[in-house]
Amino acid sequence: MSIVPGSSPAGGSSASRPIRIAVDAMGGDNAPGVEIGGAIAAAREAEGEIEVVLVGQRGLLEAEIAKRDATGLPISIVDAADVIGMHDAPAEAVRRKRGSSLVVATTLHKKGEVDGLVSAGNTGAVVAAGLLGLGMLRGVRRPAIASLYPTLKDPAIVLDVGASVDCRPSDLLEFAVMGMAYARHVLGRDDPQVALVNIGEEPSKGNELTRAAHRLLKESDLTFIGNIEGSSILAGAADVIVCDGFVGNVILKLTEGLIHILPRFLSQGSGIAAGDADGLRRKFDYAEYGGAPLLGVNGAVIIAHGASSEKAIKNAVKVAAKFVDADVDGVIVDTLREVVSNDGR
Amino acid sequence: MSIVPGSSPAGGSSASRPIRIAVDAMGGDNAPGVEIGGAIAAAREAEGEIEVVLVGQRGLLEAEIAKRDATGLPISIVDAADVIGMHDAPAEAVRRKRGSSLVVATTLHKKGEVDGLVSAGNTGAVVAAGLLGLGMLRGVRRPAIASLYPTLKDPAIVLDVGASVDCRPSDLLEFAVMGMAYARHVLGRDDPQVALVNIGEEPSKGNELTRAAHRLLKESDLTFIGNIEGSSILAGAADVIVCDGFVGNVILKLTEGLIHILPRFLSQGSGIAAGDADGLRRKFDYAEYGGAPLLGVNGAVIIAHGASSEKAIKNAVKVAAKFVDADVDGVIVDTLREVVSNDGR
Repeated sequence: MSIVPGSSPAGGSSASRPIRIAVDAMGGDNAPGVEIGGAIAAAREAEGEIEVVLVGQRGLLEAEIAKRDATGLPISIVDAADVIGMHDAPAEAVRRKRGSSLVVATTLHKKGEVDGLVSAGNTGAVVAAGLLGLGMLRGVRRPAIASLYPTLKDPAIVLDVGASVDCRPSDLLEFAVMGMAYARHVLGRDDPQVALVNIGEEPSKGNELTRAAHRLLKESDLTFIGNIEGSSILAGAADVIVCDGFVGNVILKLTEGLIHILPRFLSQGSGIAAGDADGLRRKFDYAEYGGAPLLGVNGAVIIAHGASSEKAIKNAVKVAAKFVDADVDGVIVDTLREVVSNDGR
Repeated sequence: MSIVPGSSPAGGSSASRPIRIAVDAMGGDNAPGVEIGGAIAAAREAEGEIEVVLVGQRGLLEAEIAKRDATGLPISIVDAADVIGMHDAPAEAVRRKRGSSLVVATTLHKKGEVDGLVSAGNTGAVVAAGLLGLGMLRGVRRPAIASLYPTLKDPAIVLDVGASVDCRPSDLLEFAVMGMAYARHVLGRDDPQVALVNIGEEPSKGNELTRAAHRLLKESDLTFIGNIEGSSILAGAADVIVCDGFVGNVILKLTEGLIHILPRFLSQGSGIAAGDADGLRRKFDYAEYGGAPLLGVNGAVIIAHGASSEKAIKNAVKVAAKFVDADVDGVIVDTLREVVSNDGR
């Protein structure tokens, strides 16, 4: 069984029944319309291999579904009265709003009533719900959000981009293992090349964190190609680009800012067409790739962009199903166990 | 006396004699040609207000000067037989190569035989020479390199961009004070707006370092406008953008990488002209601005880009003279003394 084209060498967790993905239908900026449109499209394209559970205010969701053709598709609704907003304090909101669509969806996942979940809501809240509701995978101390980043070759994943902003060297090694598992089993890269964001190519360069992480990565069984500088990320040498969540978030947001503002610099005295700039922005719009996995938690959680389109939600649902099918979490735990037995930690 | 147009409210350190700037003539990728051309241009344009001391291999420098018209200009040579290369280990090279142009120039500065220095050499070695040869200003724990960064409004300075990669919160406060002094007295900003690079606008966002630094900046007398995200740096809200040297270096290099690679993305299926891309790169070429000051050391040290043009070296010499004339170091020490007395540190 293969939900999305690409390799799934780890084998499926279940080949006999559909993979069930909960969609936090109240999360995004354009909820619940795009969530419902995306969920319907995913269910239709998967031809029975994905079952979608929409979580949110039942009346609202039923009205939105009624506007569309969802006849015969494996889509159900679980009612959740409350909503966590984009400006709610994440951990507090998750603790307090037990009836929110995000917390209800996470609880369904924890109980095994769904196999994974997608949310385009408050990213901090999705991270908090994952940590509090699902717990961490064995051998992983901190979670990481892995964001797809376009390069001149294939897109790379950068992790962490904001879940864990204060890291130890061993956290970066764990991020590398998680990124490798995702790149291999969801993105279909045979032998993922891992690089460490640093401020020089030599192993001696960097701050305390990256110098120590370089040593750990070098000693590991990963295909570690060394340090990568900001200027080289776009060239596409690496599949997996590792950094702490503060640095990764700065990389992501600075790139977004440059993409949006560079055409304005270019147009000062040049004849660049608005269409060119739009095309560029689209190339860098990571919503198109279907969202970023929250790696390290005990489950399959895909974070979609708040401004996700229906297509982005559809892709996020498919990515979640592929994550489950390839048992990425199992690969992470097994690989980390080998790392531990190899280096005697 | 004013070397370069702009405000110098702090007053000059000396109004009666020329300001003497040493130029490490062996430092850059195209040394010593561009260094000598730039030094001659600066001396000519300053009309007697700047005296340039070229430091390097005398025979080589004399031959280069002979190719140009330097008649009657206040330019002298101090011989230095050795050279620190771009790939030498910085601190080790500074300790070992006592006869290198960089170390000789720094020693001249330490002895008061010149008032400031410019080098386009190995950046790490310039930082090490500043630290070891000049020492730190009173009240400053760590140095910072302040790089000019183009925005949609006036250029901002970002500091640190690589001198100090492991920082305490108080280091970031000191960087802010140093950046404020430079922005005000060299760039001529009346009331420099200071911002902190962070991963969210709210004070509660960030890692341990930035959350604590935010509190210190908030309590200070600086005009602190709060956190700035990577996506907003280019909009130009701030004059002084503060971060640790690891993050600043990633920002600088990622920007350089994007500037060079984005036109290749644009040209995939669009009609962007090569000239547009060149114009964009020029706008972001910080060599055009004349180099980045190494702030916090007891002296006036300007780091020029390794690939500096003659114009960049000329501008760097003028910036060094302005730095001396405005007594930026004195302003930093005085401001930090006020900060200390205000918060009882």
